[in-house]
Order: sequence, then structure tokens, then C-alpha cells
Amino acid sequence: MGTTLADAMPDHPPPALTALVRHPDGAVEELSATKLDDIDRLIATEGILVWVSAVKPDEGEIEILRREFELHPLAVEDVRKQGQRPKLDAYAAQHMIVAYEAIEAEDELSEIHLFIGPGWLLSVTWSPTPMLDDVRGRFAGGRDLAGSGVGELLYAVLDAAIDSYFPELDRLSDRIDRLEDRILEGDADRDSLREVLAIKRRLLTLRRVLAPMRDVANQLLRRDLDIVDLATVPYYQDLYDHLVRVLDQLDVYRDLLATVLDARLTVASNSLNAIMKRLTAFTVLLMVPTLIAGIYGMNFDLMPELRWPFGYPLALGMMALAVVVAVTFFRRRGWL
Amino acid sequence: MGTTLADAMPDHPPPALTALVRHPDGAVEELSATKLDDIDRLIATEGILVWVSAVKPDEGEIEILRREFELHPLAVEDVRKQGQRPKLDAYAAQHMIVAYEAIEAEDELSEIHLFIGPGWLLSVTWSPTPMLDDVRGRFAGGRDLAGSGVGELLYAVLDAAIDSYFPELDRLSDRIDRLEDRILEGDADRDSLREVLAIKRRLLTLRRVLAPMRDVANQLLRRDLDIVDLATVPYYQDLYDHLVRVLDQLDVYRDLLATVLDARLTVASNSLNAIMKRLTAFTVLLMVPTLIAGIYGMNFDLMPELRWPFGYPLALGMMALAVVVAVTFFRRRGWL
Amino acid sequence: MGTTLADAMPDHPPPALTALVRHPDGAVEELSATKLDDIDRLIATEGILVWVSAVKPDEGEIEILRREFELHPLAVEDVRKQGQRPKLDAYAAQHMIVAYEAIEAEDELSEIHLFIGPGWLLSVTWSPTPMLDDVRGRFAGGRDLAGSGVGELLYAVLDAAIDSYFPELDRLSDRIDRLEDRILEGDADRDSLREVLAIKRRLLTLRRVLAPMRDVANQLLRRDLDIVDLATVPYYQDLYDHLVRVLDQLDVYRDLLATVLDARLTVASNSLNAIMKRLTAFTVLLMVPTLIAGIYGMNFDLMPELRWPFGYPLALGMMALAVVVAVTFFRRRGWL
Amino acid sequence: MGTTLADAMPDHPPPALTALVRHPDGAVEELSATKLDDIDRLIATEGILVWVSAVKPDEGEIEILRREFELHPLAVEDVRKQGQRPKLDAYAAQHMIVAYEAIEAEDELSEIHLFIGPGWLLSVTWSPTPMLDDVRGRFAGGRDLAGSGVGELLYAVLDAAIDSYFPELDRLSDRIDRLEDRILEGDADRDSLREVLAIKRRLLTLRRVLAPMRDVANQLLRRDLDIVDLATVPYYQDLYDHLVRVLDQLDVYRDLLATVLDARLTVASNSLNAIMKRLTAFTVLLMVPTLIAGIYGMNFDLMPELRWPFGYPLALGMMALAVVVAVTFFRRRGWL
Amino acid sequence: MGTTLADAMPDHPPPALTALVRHPDGAVEELSATKLDDIDRLIATEGILVWVSAVKPDEGEIEILRREFELHPLAVEDVRKQGQRPKLDAYAAQHMIVAYEAIEAEDELSEIHLFIGPGWLLSVTWSPTPMLDDVRGRFAGGRDLAGSGVGELLYAVLDAAIDSYFPELDRLSDRIDRLEDRILEGDADRDSLREVLAIKRRLLTLRRVLAPMRDVANQLLRRDLDIVDLATVPYYQDLYDHLVRVLDQLDVYRDLLATVLDARLTVASNSLNAIMKRLTAFTVLLMVPTLIAGIYGMNFDLMPELRWPFGYPLALGMMALAVVVAVTFFRRRGWL
Repeated sequence: MGTTLADAMPDHPPPALTALVRHPDGAVEELSATKLDDIDRLIATEGILVWVSAVKPDEGEIEILRREFELHPLAVEDVRKQGQRPKLDAYAAQHMIVAYEAIEAEDELSEIHLFIGPGWLLSVTWSPTPMLDDVRGRFAGGRDLAGSGVGELLYAVLDAAIDSYFPELDRLSDRIDRLEDRILEGDADRDSLREVLAIKRRLLTLRRVLAPMRDVANQLLRRDLDIVDLATVPYYQDLYDHLVRVLDQLDVYRDLLATVLDARLTVASNSLNAIMKRLTAFTVLLMVPTLIAGIYGMNFDLMPELRWPFGYPLALGMMALAVVVAVTFFRRRGWL
Repeated sequence: MGTTLADAMPDHPPPALTALVRHPDGAVEELSATKLDDIDRLIATEGILVWVSAVKPDEGEIEILRREFELHPLAVEDVRKQGQRPKLDAYAAQHMIVAYEAIEAEDELSEIHLFIGPGWLLSVTWSPTPMLDDVRGRFAGGRDLAGSGVGELLYAVLDAAIDSYFPELDRLSDRIDRLEDRILEGDADRDSLREVLAIKRRLLTLRRVLAPMRDVANQLLRRDLDIVDLATVPYYQDLYDHLVRVLDQLDVYRDLLATVLDARLTVASNSLNAIMKRLTAFTVLLMVPTLIAGIYGMNFDLMPELRWPFGYPLALGMMALAVVVAVTFFRRRGWL
Repeated sequence: MGTTLADAMPDHPPPALTALVRHPDGAVEELSATKLDDIDRLIATEGILVWVSAVKPDEGEIEILRREFELHPLAVEDVRKQGQRPKLDAYAAQHMIVAYEAIEAEDELSEIHLFIGPGWLLSVTWSPTPMLDDVRGRFAGGRDLAGSGVGELLYAVLDAAIDSYFPELDRLSDRIDRLEDRILEGDADRDSLREVLAIKRRLLTLRRVLAPMRDVANQLLRRDLDIVDLATVPYYQDLYDHLVRVLDQLDVYRDLLATVLDARLTVASNSLNAIMKRLTAFTVLLMVPTLIAGIYGMNFDLMPELRWPFGYPLALGMMALAVVVAVTFFRRRGWL
Repeated sequence: MGTTLADAMPDHPPPALTALVRHPDGAVEELSATKLDDIDRLIATEGILVWVSAVKPDEGEIEILRREFELHPLAVEDVRKQGQRPKLDAYAAQHMIVAYEAIEAEDELSEIHLFIGPGWLLSVTWSPTPMLDDVRGRFAGGRDLAGSGVGELLYAVLDAAIDSYFPELDRLSDRIDRLEDRILEGDADRDSLREVLAIKRRLLTLRRVLAPMRDVANQLLRRDLDIVDLATVPYYQDLYDHLVRVLDQLDVYRDLLATVLDARLTVASNSLNAIMKRLTAFTVLLMVPTLIAGIYGMNFDLMPELRWPFGYPLALGMMALAVVVAVTFFRRRGWL
Repeated sequence: MGTTLADAMPDHPPPALTALVRHPDGAVEELSATKLDDIDRLIATEGILVWVSAVKPDEGEIEILRREFELHPLAVEDVRKQGQRPKLDAYAAQHMIVAYEAIEAEDELSEIHLFIGPGWLLSVTWSPTPMLDDVRGRFAGGRDLAGSGVGELLYAVLDAAIDSYFPELDRLSDRIDRLEDRILEGDADRDSLREVLAIKRRLLTLRRVLAPMRDVANQLLRRDLDIVDLATVPYYQDLYDHLVRVLDQLDVYRDLLATVLDARLTVASNSLNAIMKRLTAFTVLLMVPTLIAGIYGMNFDLMPELRWPFGYPLALGMMALAVVVAVTFFRRRGWL
């Protein structure tokens, strides 16, 4: 207990750490910064629900959290490194859940580390998490979130995180639809290819995050954790169903994208056919009159046509006729 | 109990909520609208089977259902949001099943929410469900549906929903057959591609709905629900078998479609080969006489052929011969 | 018991229903038609083994079967509808197995419904089943089929059905080999594509039937049915092994077919390359002499070659030389 | 017991059946042929280990084996038919294992049927099995094979069979490497395609044999058989590990082959691009001078160049210049 | 016990075998070479932790290890052969783990064999293992590695091995990104194909090694081994999570690579389209003036244009105009 909270924190407490305390009577109070090292006492009190949220904590703040919540060294290491896979780690004194929230603006995902113990929840984040902030706002306002225990609070937080993926799905669906339309209109250029690759990467990122989140939901549902009581089970079932729905949809998108990529190849090959038909038509179109001109360019002594007064216009007429016949022929077959 | 049923419902009851009651003697009676808030008493009566059906219920009607059947908040939320994945949710007071019926006319699927309790069934729908209406008609007519309990009624409803997919399968089979024929006849244009993508999307939609419906059937079969008794098990086994059959067929269609798409690429590539062969043939066909004409267009002093009386017709004859030889040659090889 | 068998059946019994009875002493007797409504008494007799076979039964005959064997309504419905997936349905009074036999002549599959009870077997078929008839002939001849119980009889029937697939596999293997040879010889035309699609459909049909048959064999093996006793287990293990072997082989064929289809695309693309090489060679071959002819067709006053006595033959010689050089060049590179 | 061994076997015993007996003191004796019908007595003796090996047995010899070892009818049928899938069949009196050995010389697989009972092993083969013969030679020489029981003997035999696949893997790896090199060097002709298909078939054959062999090893490891005792478990674990390693490698090869086939298509398409670039270059190269020649072949009265003394060389020079410019231009872009 | 350690080892001990001993007081001592045959006594001492590391051991050293640690013959065979699949083999006297470390410099993997017994760890390696050496250095320095038991030591070693894959993943990600960029810029040449194949092989190698390592981690986590105690479980959970993360990432890369290969084909086909468009444009561009020249090269007596004073410049102008029109036309359509 070398450094105390007083050492680490100046008069103006860092905004990184904030704590909300819900008392048994339902009143919610925001803990003043100087009381942050009472957290260990608070969370030992029966009937009180504490939510500490850390935003971009620095080393000193992580140390405070470690000490107050007695976090396991491996959990602290995960917090430091970030970039974790969604998971549920059960330690002796607390449980850790890693989850991700989709952010509308940036095409990125926000990592969320949640620590849960009897009567308390600690959330650590590094990037904007509007959905999580919204839940926190409702909690601060004293509104009921499914129920009053920490299991219900955890449900509310995870449910918000998962709900963030539905608009993301809609955006992806739009992008795939637009892509399909463009390609069906024959646009097989580099930009559409770039878009295929970008959507593919996004789908892979989402799947990589959501598949383990489904496993976490399943673990919670099977009540491996002592936090989820029987009355909360339907809520976690609902969570699990939502995740399965999102994952189903991602699989549908992956299949559609693969078909679109195949279709793109077919469009390119159709377009090649059209070009070659045109080339063939042009070749015939221009070579037939050239041949006629060549014939009347021959130097035979006895070529009666050359003497005819209307020989020249006749030759030009033959050329024109040849072109008209060829154009008609190829137009009819759809080659021109 | 702020608003009573009398407040929410005017003299003319909304057609959205209708209730059928089957008495122990087999007689079926349609409940008058004013008695709808007796439902809670009715479903508590031994030996009576109640089927309430809600079509496009508004907020007030959902509230009535919630109160009368004591629906769980999450179930009510699902009813409000719609677009659920087929599932079986077990709540303390009732079970909820989400299923889908295929509709012939519209290439769409109708969502059906079913709530089941001891002695009662509540169905909520938003779009036309001819198969479900048919079951309801038979029930209203007092006809026997597999048996007299709520388990048998649920079976009849789900069986009707699943039977709606068999004509859908036939339609898909026809579309794939027609597509295959068109493509084998060399039609590799944009419309056939559009049709491939449309069938693909339909297959994905059906699979996304039917795979979880199979899981629901399996849960019912394993008698996780207390509603299915031993004598009804063969019926649910039959339900499950039907779903597996439909899913098997969907997989067959998916495989066939993939092969058809591959075939389409091959047809396009064959067609390109044919075009290029024709181009080559035309090039040779027209360039040989052009060359002959070029030769006799040379200005050498001493070109004996030019002086021959039949030089010109001979030259024309050579050109004609060259064309005939080339045409014969390329015809024989199948290039023209 | 409204209609008796006497009402339904005239003096000459319909050939659709025939019954074989094996007495405890091993003697096998064909039941006369008038005694068919004694079946319910017969199958209640200890030590007697009855095999009733129905071929294309009409409604009346199905009704007789239903009454005599007390068939479950769902089983009767399956018999009426046909087109079932292979399955094993356990009802209170009997078990039903749906299986398929491959027929050599017609590239079709014959559906077989088997009902099994203690001491009796009922088979219902609609199309020719030579393998099944063969087993029936052996049974009628009093020959031993693996053993004397109904479990052994069922084994003999299923084994015959499964053995029908081995010649089918050989036919498929031959077709794929021939296809591969044709394509490797460069035959990438529409007929080979049609054959690819036909084999694909056949493989999918077989797999759709055989995979659930394997599950049925597994259920029998695990002795879910009380009919299979311990001594018969090796026989059912053998059955299961055969099915797995057939399915393995189907997977191999599917993989080979996919590779053949890929190879077909490569052959088409190789062939295109060859055509384009030829086009390039022909273009060069014909344009060089045309250029030479064009040069000596120019009208300059001072072109000494035009005055040379051997100018014309020299020009022709140059053209011939150019053609010979070009042909040699392109021949060496394999373009012609 | 109609025919005795004396009837079936003349003075000179057939080389097909040979028996090795290991006595409790470790001495190994080859049984003289006339004593072969003592086998039933021998295998009943405590402490003795008997290995009978049958090579291409005829019907009479199979009958002897059936009688002496009391083989199950189904096992005898498998021996007669051959072509079995690797499997472990447990009969009352003995166990049968079907395995395959890879042979270096012939690109084929040798089928091995093994029967195991307490104190005896019977091996039946039809083609050369050098690895198995080697184990037999070591056994005949009295050398220790992992241990002295029949479980250890079985391990030695199976281990030898599996070791035969490692050189096979090396050969496949070499073939794929060579194929990849050839294709990367642009060789996309028919031979490389034939090789792709041949390797594919070989991989499928090996996988079809090795995957069920892994299942057999797993069954042995789980000690479903009473033959494997606890001390032998590490050996069977080793066996299993080897099979998994071989199968892993086959999967890697399958993936590589698929990529190589894809690469082949890309190479063909690159080569097509190169040809078309050359065709375009040639076309331009030859048509520009042809145009120039055409211009000076025109018959206008007033074309001053035609009167110039150096008109002709100038025209030739322009043509040469055009060719040089075009060649340089296309060379720079890599089209020639 | 024929050869003693004194026979096998000269005055200067081989550097291949080194031993570290951690005493109960935390002090770590490096064992002098002459004391190596006391190892069997040391590891029998309570409270002492011994880590023997063998680098490229020769036959004599392997024999010493076999004798001192009483290694199982199969384990010794694995050490001799190397090239093992990652696995956990449980023998009576010790456990063996095979793992692999990724090396930055060489694009290779280093095989590590670990033997674990109560109070001792033996590591055998053949190539550089910087991560392992680092752990050994920390251990030699007396620093704490997660804890003081052999389970903690094993964790530290495996954790180091797995951490070696993260930079490897980064390198692969970079290579795929660069490849994607190159291909999107239209570079579809042989080098990019070679890179695709190289990355594919690397991914397959890593997957083949890491998938079984995950299984080993899972076995350790399920505490099949008596070495992992309850307090160490979170560490092994962390190990397992890391492996799953690496494997997830490999799957993402495999999917991306497949898409990139597909994209490559599309780029090649786009490029072909561009070439053919250009060829068509050039053909038209050059043939139209050639035709005009041909027309005025005809020898008709009555061609008024030929007599016009400005006929020649007019003809040249027409040609120029034709070229300009054609260029403009094809430029607008993007064909030139």
C-alpha cells in the first residue's frame, strides 16, 4: 500500500475515473473523486450497487483500480494491452468480460472491458461508446434497468453493446445492395472491386468479434457465473438470441458477397464477349469495301467496269451497300 | 389496472382480437368482444381450450394481451419489434414460439408469434397467413386437430406453417430448372444473372428462417416443454422430419445453383471461343482476296497477267476460289 | 369394423397384397387371399413370422392394412403421400422405416415403406424393386436369411436395398471417367456440360437419400428398437459400414466432379489461347504480303524496281518468302 | 466337419498359409503344414502367441481358416469380397480389423485383414506388403516388438502399415512442388492438368482409407477392445498421432492443390493478355505502313510527292520510321 | 548401467546439456557438468525445481537424458526423429509436450520438446529459440515466473513460445496488405502469384502447428495433467485464449487471401477487356483511312475527284478527319 490515492490524484480528480453508487432506496449518487479509495469499503457493503467507469485510464489509475478491486495480474495485463478477443475470464475475486461496441461514425469497434463482482461493476474503455454512455446515463438517472442486481446491470450494458450492431448490419446491407446494382449495370471496374474487399474485411472483423461474444453470452446463460440468477435468465436468453441473429445475418452477407464477386466475373466475361462481337463486326464492315476498292485498283488492261461512265458511282454504291448489309446483319444478331 | 378493457374498446370491437373457446363437450364458441377481459378467468378454468388470435394489434390491444395473459416484458418487446428469429422462449407463466409461414402470392414470409400456456394459445400476426387461417377455420368448425389438448393444437398450427414451404420448394425447383435450360441454350445475359442472384437471396432467406425452426421443433420433440405429452411425440417427430426434408432440399438447390453459376461462366467462355473462331475465319476470308487484288494492283511494267484478255475474270475467279476454299475449311472445323 | 375384408375384396384377390407365413418348423406358406383378414390373429400367434407385401395398394387396401396392423394415422398418411425422407418412426404398436432401392434400368429410386412389429413385417412399394423381390423369393423358398427372427428378416431386406447402390456407384464412376477423358481431350462443348449437371443432380439425389438411411442404420445399431437382439448387432454394423462406404464414395465423386468442372474451364481457356495465337499468326501472315503489294502499287514516277524485267517475280518471291518465314516462325513457337 | 484338413491339403502344403508360434520362453517356431489343423488347439493353450498369415488364400484355405478360428460368417464374407473400408468389427469370438498399406512401387494400396483373439493374430493379404513382411521377419527372428502380448503384436503390425504412408507423402509433396514450379513458369498445358487430376485422385484415395483408419486407432486407444492393456496405451496413442499427422498433411496438400489449380487459371489468363497485346501491336505495326502505301497508290493527278526524285525512298523511309516508332512504343509498354 | 556418465563425457562438458536448479530459498544455481548424473537424485529431492535444457543433443547425450529421467522409449524415439506434431503425451513417469516457436529471422519454426515431471522440466531444441532462451535467462536470474512450481514454469515457457507468433501475424498482415495494393493497382504478374502461393504455404504451416497446440493448451486447462493446480488455471486459460486469437487471425488471413486471389482474376479479366477495346479502336482507326486511300487508288476512267486540283489534300483531310472522329469517339467511351 505504498502510494495512497491522495498521492496519485491531485485536487482536481482526473475525469478518467467516475463512480456511481445506487443505494438500497434506489437513490443514485455520483461519488466525489476524493472518496475513490473508499471503493473497497463500499463494495463490501451489503445492498449497494457500484458502477465505476474508467475512460482511457493511465498507469496510475490502472494501479488504483487494481488495488481497490484486487484485480488479478492477468486481467490487469489485458487492460494494459487491449486488443483482446471477447471472452469471459473467471478469477477468484472477480469476473472479466471483454466485449465490443460498434460505432456508427467511424467504421471502427470500441473495446470494452467489464469487471463484475458481487454488488459492483467496473467498465474500462478507450474510445467513444455512445450506447454504453446511454446506459450509464439511465442508471445515473435512477431508472430501472431490467432489475436491481448486478446481473441485471451487466445485462443492460451487454444488451446496449449488441444493439449497436443492428445499424451496422443495415449499413452493410445497403452497401451490398448498391454494389450488386452497380455490377448488374455492368460496372466491373476497380472501385467496385475495392468495395468488395472493404466489405469482406468488415464482415470478417465483425464475425471475429461477434462469434466469441456469442460464446460469452452462452456461458452467462448456462449460469457458469454466480451473478445471473434464475429470473434474469430470459434476459440473457434474449441477448444470446440477438447475437445469433446478427451472426446469421453476417453469414447471409458473406454468401451474398461471394455470389456478387462471382457475378462480377461473369459481367466482365459478358462485356468481353460484347467487345469481341463489335471488333468482328467492325473488321467485316471495313474490310469488304476495302476489298472492293482493291479490286477496282487492279491494273488489268481489260476491266470493262473501269470504262463505264457510272463505274465509279457504282463501285461506291456497292461499298455502301456492303456496309449497309453488314450493319443490318450484325445489328440483327445484336453484335453492334 | 388503470385502463380497463371498456376504455380501450368502443362498442364495435376491433377485429384485431378474436377468441375461440372449445368447451369440454367439444362445442366451439366465438367469444363476444365485450367478454375479452374475462380471458384471464377463462384460461384458469379446467377443461377449456382457448385460442385468441391477434391480427395487426395496435398498442392498446397489445396492452390488453399483456395484462390478460401476463406476458413477460421481453415477449411484449418482441411482439412490438417483430422481425424475430424463429425461437422458443420459456418464461415462467407462458412459452413463446416465433415461426414463419411462406405465402404463395408475394414471395414474402409471414411472421407468427405464438404464446402457449396450459389450456390456451395466443397467435399474433401482421400479414396474411392463409394456412394458419385454415387451421383456425377447422378449429372453429369443431373438427378434431390430431387431439384435444393445447399440445395438439400447437402441432396443428406449426404443421400448417411448415406445409406452406412445400409449394415454395416446387416454385424454386421450377425456377432453377428453367434457369438451367436457358443457360444450357447459351443464354448467359444479364437477366439470367439477375435471376441467379434473386434465387440465391430467396434460398438464404428460407434457410435463415427454417434452420432455427428445426431447432424449435427439436426442442419441442425433446419435450423441454411440459405441453407435449407422450402420445403427441410422433406428431412432433413428423414436424421435425418435414423441416429436415425442406432443409435438405434447400441444400440441394443451393448446390445446384452454384453449379449453374459455374456452368454460366463456362457457357460465356465457350461463346467467346466461338466468336473468336468466327473473327479469325472472317479475317482470313477477307484478307486473302484483298491480297490478290493488291498483287494485281502493283505497277510493274512486266506483269503478263495484266495483258491477258481473261486476266481480270481469272483474278476474280482466284478470289472467289480463295473465299470458297476458306469457307469450306472453316466450316469443316466448325469455326463458321 | 364397418366394412369387412369380404366386402372390400372380390373372389379373385387383388395381387397387390400377398402374405408369406413361416411356421415354427421352418415351412413357409403363402396365405390365400380370403384369409387376409386373419392377419391380426396370425401376428398375435407366438413363433410365427409373417411378411405381408403390398405393391401399389389402392385406398381400400391401405384401409385393410391400417385395420389389420393397427397402423398409426401419421404412418398411413406417409404411405398415402409417399416421397418421404428415409427415417425410422417409432409408434406404440409398430415401427416404420422408409428406405430406397436403386434401380439399374431407370436411373430412378424405388421408395420402400417397412412396418415392423413382433413377429411380422409389412412392406409397401410402388415401383419395381428387384432386390427386395429377390429376398422375398429366398424367404418364400424357406431359405435362411441370417437368422429366423424379424430382426434378421429386416436386416436381409435393408441389406438388399443397400446392395442396389454398388452397381449405381460403378455406373457413376464410369460416367465421371469418360467425362474426364472427353474434357482432357479438349471437348468442352455443351454436351459435356449437360453431363456434368446430370451427374451432379444424381449425386445430390443419392446423397439426400443415403445420408438419412445411414442415420436409420445407426439408430437400429444402437438398438433403440427392441427388434434387434445382441446376436444380430454385427449384421447391422455391417449394414452401417456399407452405407458409410457408399457415402464416402459419393463424396469422392463430388470432389472429382468439381475438379473436372474446374478443369473444363481451364481447357476452354487454353483453347481460347490457341485460337488467339492462330489469329495473330494469320494476321501477320497475310498483312506482310499485302504491305509488299501495297508498296509496289504506289504511283511514284521513280521506282526502279517497277522497270526491272524480273521485278514482278521478285516481288512475288518476297511475298512468298515473307509467308514462309512467318509460317516457320509461328510453327516453331507452336502458334500454328 | 465334412472335409478334413487332410482332404483339402496335399503332401506339399500350399504356401498361402504359414503359422509362427512363439513359446513362453521366447523361442519362435514355424509350424509345419501338416499341423495346421492343430491351430484350434494351439490358440487354446495358455502363454503361446500364434501368428497365422494367409497370402491370396483360395476358397479351401478360407474354409480352413473359418473352421480353425471359428470366424463369423460376415467376417468370412468380407475376406471373400475384399475392397472393405478400414474398420474394427467386434464379434463374439474374435475382432477383425481392416487396414491398408501403401506400396512404393505401384501407386496402389494393399488391403490387410487382421483377426485378433486372445493369444493369436491372423493376417490375410492379397498383394505385396513389404512393411508387414518386415514385421513378420522380425517376429520370426524372435526379436521383441514393443512387448510380448497380442496387443503389442497388433501395434507392431499397424505401426508398420501406417509408416508406409510417410514416403508416400514425400512423393506427393515432390509432385505438387514440381507442378507448382511448372505452372509458375507458364506451363499451363494439358499434361499439367492431367497431373492435377491424378494428384487429386490420389489424395482422395488416401484420405478415404486413412480417415477410417484413424477412427480404428481411436477405438483401440479408448480400449473398447480387451486386447489393449494399460501399458500398451502410449503405443496406440503414438499410432493415433501418426495417423492424425498424415491426415493433416493430406489436408495441406489438398489446399495447396486447389490453390495451384486456381493459379493455373490465372497463368492462362495472363498468357491470353500477353497474346492479345502482341496481336494489337502487330496490327498497328503492319497497318500503318500499309496505309502509307495506300496513300501513295492513290491516282490523283496532282500529287507532288509522286514526281519528287526521292519520293519513293522517302515513302519507304516513312514506313520504316513508322515501324520503328511503333516497335519502340510497344516494347516500352511491354506489349512486344 | 554399462556406460557411466564419466565414460560418455570428457573433462570439458558438452555445452549441449545445461541444468538450472532453484532451491527452496529462491536461489538459482547452474549445475556443474560433472554433476549431471546426479540429476536423478536431485529431482527426487522435495522443494527443488530443476530445468535441464538440451540443445542439439547427440546420441550419447540423449542416452544420458533417457537414463537420468527414465524417459519412455516412444518419447526417446520422438526426440530422435523430430518433426512431431504438437501434442501432449502422458507416460507413467513423465509427460511430454511438443511445441513450436516462430523465429523472426528465418521464416521457419523451431521445434521444442518439453518433458515435465514433479519438480523438473527438460527442454530439448535443435534450432535457435530466442523466446525460450529469454525465459531461461529470467529463470536463471531468479526472477519470478507467474509462480514457483513446475506448472508455472511450464506456463512461462509455453507463453513465450506462443508470444512468438504475434510478430509473425503482423508480418503476414503486412504482406497481404501490400499484395492487395499491388493487385488493385493492376499488377497481376507472376511475382504477385508467387507471393500468393508463398503466403498460402505459410498460413497452412502455421495452422498445422497452432491448431494442435490449442488442443494441448485445452488439455492442460482441463487439468488432465496433475501439474496444473487450481491457482494456475487462469494462466492456462490465458494461454488458450492467445492461441484461439492467433488461429482466428489465421482464418481471417486465409479468407482475405482467397478474396485477393479472386480479385486477381478479375483484374486480369478487366485488363483483357481494356486491351481488346484498344485493339478494336486501333483497327477502326487505321482501316478507315486505308479504305479511303483504296477508293482513290481505283482505276476508273471517270473519277472527277482525281482531276480536282485540291483532290489530294482533300483526300488526306478526309483521312485525318476520320482519324480525329474515331479517336474522339473511342476516347469518349473510354476505349483509348
